[in-house]
Amino acid sequence: MPNQAVRLDRVFRALADPTRRAVLAQLNAGPAPLTVLARPFRMALPSFAQHMDLLEHCGLVRSHKRGRVRTYTLSPKPLAAAEAWLADQRKLWERRLDQLDAYVTALKKDTTP
Amino acid sequence: MPNQAVRLDRVFRALADPTRRAVLAQLNAGPAPLTVLARPFRMALPSFAQHMDLLEHCGLVRSHKRGRVRTYTLSPKPLAAAEAWLADQRKLWERRLDQLDAYVTALKKDTTP
Repeated sequence: MPNQAVRLDRVFRALADPTRRAVLAQLNAGPAPLTVLARPFRMALPSFAQHMDLLEHCGLVRSHKRGRVRTYTLSPKPLAAAEAWLADQRKLWERRLDQLDAYVTALKKDTTP
Repeated sequence: MPNQAVRLDRVFRALADPTRRAVLAQLNAGPAPLTVLARPFRMALPSFAQHMDLLEHCGLVRSHKRGRVRTYTLSPKPLAAAEAWLADQRKLWERRLDQLDAYVTALKKDTTP
């Protein structure tokens, strides 16, 4: 399986969870420490940290530790790959609809006296 | 969790697999029976059918059976929701970069003699 496919698998899997999507949305406002990011969620910190590990593993966030504080930054490049895949599908679908439309128009023309 | 979040969970989970993404891409060319869709993949038909069940469950494909042949059709609306979520994130990120840019420009202006 080519690397691009593996990357898309990981990114889409990362996005298939409301907590992780909410964290990514939150990080659009700027870098934030783990404890601040965890605050809106009703979950134990180790469980929340697992979500952050998964996001970091697939390259959607980066982190650095200063003393006891780990701070996370959004790294949105993999999201662009996912968005591009979806845009490609939409274009293929729209092209097919256009072809169908042209076919129906031609059919009408042929059958109209 | 609101319905929209559940739908996004399902769609992103469905997309986190190369077989399912390839099938969706294939269905852009038009409806196709299960056996034709399964042909490019090295997998037993029951395993492949499970992928199709998952795609149907999250509304990305529809199917109908005529005699012994089950035919699948793409139903791309849930993809639009996923694409919209990603586009929103990109806009938020770009807005933040614009704000940072404006901040740095102002800083430069203030500190230039």
